[in-house]
Amino acid sequence: MTDSGKKSASWLVRAQKSVSYEVRFCEDLFRSDRTDLLEKGEDLGRQRRFVVIDGNVDRLHGDRIRAYFEHHGVEYAMMTVAADETVKDFETTARIVRELDGFGIARRREPIIVIGGGVLTDIAGLAASLYRRGTPFLRVPTTLIGLVDAGVGVKTGVNFNGHKNRLGTYAPAELTLLDRTFLATLDRRQISNGLAEILKIALIKDFALFELLEEHGACLLAEKFQGHSAESDQAAVAVLHAATHGMLEELEPNLWEAELERCVDYGHTFSPTIEMRALPALLHGEAVCVDMALSTILAFRRGLLTEAQRDRVFAVMTLLELPIWDALLEPGILAQALRDAVRHRDGRQRLPLPVGIGGVTFVNDVTSEELGAALKIHRELGGVRRLPVA
Amino acid sequence: MTDSGKKSASWLVRAQKSVSYEVRFCEDLFRSDRTDLLEKGEDLGRQRRFVVIDGNVDRLHGDRIRAYFEHHGVEYAMMTVAADETVKDFETTARIVRELDGFGIARRREPIIVIGGGVLTDIAGLAASLYRRGTPFLRVPTTLIGLVDAGVGVKTGVNFNGHKNRLGTYAPAELTLLDRTFLATLDRRQISNGLAEILKIALIKDFALFELLEEHGACLLAEKFQGHSAESDQAAVAVLHAATHGMLEELEPNLWEAELERCVDYGHTFSPTIEMRALPALLHGEAVCVDMALSTILAFRRGLLTEAQRDRVFAVMTLLELPIWDALLEPGILAQALRDAVRHRDGRQRLPLPVGIGGVTFVNDVTSEELGAALKIHRELGGVRRLPVA
Repeated sequence: MTDSGKKSASWLVRAQKSVSYEVRFCEDLFRSDRTDLLEKGEDLGRQRRFVVIDGNVDRLHGDRIRAYFEHHGVEYAMMTVAADETVKDFETTARIVRELDGFGIARRREPIIVIGGGVLTDIAGLAASLYRRGTPFLRVPTTLIGLVDAGVGVKTGVNFNGHKNRLGTYAPAELTLLDRTFLATLDRRQISNGLAEILKIALIKDFALFELLEEHGACLLAEKFQGHSAESDQAAVAVLHAATHGMLEELEPNLWEAELERCVDYGHTFSPTIEMRALPALLHGEAVCVDMALSTILAFRRGLLTEAQRDRVFAVMTLLELPIWDALLEPGILAQALRDAVRHRDGRQRLPLPVGIGGVTFVNDVTSEELGAALKIHRELGGVRRLPVA
Repeated sequence: MTDSGKKSASWLVRAQKSVSYEVRFCEDLFRSDRTDLLEKGEDLGRQRRFVVIDGNVDRLHGDRIRAYFEHHGVEYAMMTVAADETVKDFETTARIVRELDGFGIARRREPIIVIGGGVLTDIAGLAASLYRRGTPFLRVPTTLIGLVDAGVGVKTGVNFNGHKNRLGTYAPAELTLLDRTFLATLDRRQISNGLAEILKIALIKDFALFELLEEHGACLLAEKFQGHSAESDQAAVAVLHAATHGMLEELEPNLWEAELERCVDYGHTFSPTIEMRALPALLHGEAVCVDMALSTILAFRRGLLTEAQRDRVFAVMTLLELPIWDALLEPGILAQALRDAVRHRDGRQRLPLPVGIGGVTFVNDVTSEELGAALKIHRELGGVRRLPVA
């Protein structure tokens, strides 16, 4: 603390906060002999846990999850939340906090457990981070997008005023447990949804991951990452690890987004506006893919990647059953999305564009003319390749 | 990042966040030649600022504040909020965010300006910290409690589910400007309210400050810290600086409350429950003073301070026109308050008790019998000395 000591005194307060968190792959988390989920926190007389679980996950897996807590003698309350993008708002956060407050937990040693997709972990993470100005929590992502994206970072959030994740905090879960066995009960579309974020990591920084998706993507989608053969099992593990590793490598040095040029923002410039406008028609990963397709064309027009590379990218998007085009892609909406992105990125576009496959650059000079010209190509390519969405 | 590299891979992510913020005394902040308020942030074509102002402050000072922004050519929106403890909730936070979102600001370089008492700076600080997961803000506390307490720390918050500040964040204002000229237009009771938090600092760590209050407290209250004589001016400055300095000295090494034994929690064990139950009858500082009085008696019964010291403390409380007793002080409510404090302090009481005047210790073994015995003395002493509250 620097104290000026004069009559017009001033103090400069300085502090450093250390943050650490673990992201761990495990299989069959709720098998009775596994204790990963209970190793954080402490036994204050009796283990007490407040659990928030997604409605679908409860329906599919609730019985064995309850049996797990009972087997371990944990006094628990389990709150079921039907979480999807349309209820990703502060009201849902408040509902969680109200139940949590009723159950009562010690401030630091009885971590909240959140089991669900990215939407639920975002909402419940916000609840945990606000309750008593921060209560520890653990995450068990149960969707592919949760596993490789929402579940490994530190961002919590809810939509507000028609804007995606406009309110939120940076609050890491103490421990995130990634259990791919949950993916077995997902819809095929939900697997595609998560593959979009994996593809993002591949496109901006990991050509080897892109090749894995090109070779095994269809099989991973069909088998829902369960590895029915030795080869596909190896591919599933390799893809999940590479995606998680790539994501964490980008996040760790920039956890609080001091740097606003973030390559993981690829596909996240136009998509927040498109996703919110389309609600609930497009899943998050689908909106991201449409944005990545547009950005690929912008890059192609600038000579940053070849026509062959562009088509190769589009082919993998199609292979992964992701949409390349959406009818909401029109100049007015794109201009509005870009304006909002500029505010969010503190006054500059900072638009990530691919360089070949596996590289990235940032540009700040995209005009509406350029967007219009890219849209024209996009409409032609996307219209042809568009897949019906279930 | 530590990467286990095995099939059951795990990553340990580690990062350090540096935080710094300034607390600065200044006088007559809105005089046209002062620029303290505009030195943070940047001119992106034109200076734009979103200003949140308390209703009373707007009524008393709004014209000159608007003239100030106009004089400096700032494009601003000023939102007036009638802020008091009864509307210290998330709905008010959301109202602020909605207007802010409508006005639109760059994410990092157009700091929000908050002008008002501790309630408003807490609510608006929460809004700023949630908007896009954190937007810079500046604070101008206009009450005494804002100047010496709410305005110098990093805690934001709103009440929830009948609990005080149950939701909040740790988010420092980039710059807090302490301008005592605002105190001239406060009610006398609001000056007393702030003096309670100054007295707290004196009682736990600054005997010299206690002596200053003993000698000049009545005059500071009467003159509202405006220093009508050279001597009282010097005392006003000395008291404000000592209180701010003492508070910051405690906060800086423990900004995120990693350590839950906090001497600044003195008077804040029973008072959150009492204040919320009494709403709106007791101001925050009044509830804190009632708690400090009870804690003083607990300490006296344990032989931590003498009867003479106890009476000297009570005499200063009375001098500062603060209540020593409240009818809500009954065993059931105190037991409930203590239970909630134990949860908030992660399983232990960590109750700060005074040691003499200017010292502190922490205890964890207060029983309901001990509370009952202290209450009996308290009722006798408090009943006699109780002052009518306007």
